[in-house]
Amino acid sequence: MQVQTHKEECIMKLQAALDTLTLEECLALLDHTKGAVDIAEVGTPFIIECGMEPVRAIKAAHPEIEVLADAKIMDAGEFEADKCFEAGADIVTVLGVSYDETIEGVVRSAKTHGGQVMVDMIGVMDLAARARELDKMGVDYICVHTAFDIQGTGQKDPLEDLKVVNAVIENARAAVAGGVKLATVDAIAAEKPGVIVVGGAICNADDPAVMATAMKERMK
Amino acid sequence: MQVQTHKEECIMKLQAALDTLTLEECLALLDHTKGAVDIAEVGTPFIIECGMEPVRAIKAAHPEIEVLADAKIMDAGEFEADKCFEAGADIVTVLGVSYDETIEGVVRSAKTHGGQVMVDMIGVMDLAARARELDKMGVDYICVHTAFDIQGTGQKDPLEDLKVVNAVIENARAAVAGGVKLATVDAIAAEKPGVIVVGGAICNADDPAVMATAMKERMK
Repeated sequence: MQVQTHKEECIMKLQAALDTLTLEECLALLDHTKGAVDIAEVGTPFIIECGMEPVRAIKAAHPEIEVLADAKIMDAGEFEADKCFEAGADIVTVLGVSYDETIEGVVRSAKTHGGQVMVDMIGVMDLAARARELDKMGVDYICVHTAFDIQGTGQKDPLEDLKVVNAVIENARAAVAGGVKLATVDAIAAEKPGVIVVGGAICNADDPAVMATAMKERMK
Repeated sequence: MQVQTHKEECIMKLQAALDTLTLEECLALLDHTKGAVDIAEVGTPFIIECGMEPVRAIKAAHPEIEVLADAKIMDAGEFEADKCFEAGADIVTVLGVSYDETIEGVVRSAKTHGGQVMVDMIGVMDLAARARELDKMGVDYICVHTAFDIQGTGQKDPLEDLKVVNAVIENARAAVAGGVKLATVDAIAAEKPGVIVVGGAICNADDPAVMATAMKERMK
């Protein structure tokens, strides 16, 4: 039984960030990648454009896939998370830079709806200290995230950030997002985060389904 | 001419934060408050639920009112702001805790579309230092914002925050949000922010139109 528990803890999920595709393209991608994509992320730009419609549509078409609403909540935690979970999201994101009261509201909403909470650590200055606090607040995932706008500037190293978070968390699992690609996924997977988020590398691939499957293979 | 310029600078706009009403209720409120509401804010929860649909609908019904999309952008600044401006928003919000690169992207998008940028200072630790930086980056409004989730905890005083920002800005104008009501609007208006944001006090009033008009009267 202990071995099984250990294996369970080591499962890594592939989260596909669907930021730049149309809803039809997203649904087609998920059709073609069955078994590879564990979590379908409805990205922030998608929510800004379409609200919860893609969450409802993806959940209806693929009830076996977890749907994450990347709402990046910053305030009104419980109220905003309620909207996401009520639309069918399994996981909702809240910003690590938000007030504790906001995080607590999102956690409360998740408990009510049987959902999960991922904290997006984008912009958090003291990663270890904040991860320690969040870990005690009952969140499910703490996601180190190299912002799209600073990718390529060398300001952030997702692998180093992942190690920092993994070193301090006891209850939550780590997640990694921001520019992950086939060339960098092995080193990240070696640190055994709970979730690896891949956006552009899948969405912009010549064959997104082949790329998603290749990524998932590296995570086993 | 100097007197006119001075008067122009002193104009205070009333922004109604439409967070908890249906689209029909929003449109009815704006019908009944003509002349009182300068800026109609499509609130973050409204965007999470409906995307840009309310922005399009309000702008179509009330082209004379400025529409603000409270997207609270944290990353992918230009890409996300583009979506809001293309939907008809006149003003888009970005978080003050985001990276400079993100703010700069939103400013770039605003320039392209002839729109404006409001920075939401929620969660910013060193208000004066960040306001000084943002002021140089070409944003239009710097909004001190007492988070909904910490209203009543005494952690923030919007009036004091407003004074801090007003003391350091040279190009942008200040805005104030978070729990503003009829009892507190006079002291805030005396500091002459460019925008006063009122949410619950209008939306939850017995007669929202009467309340909006009363608020606007105090701002003249």
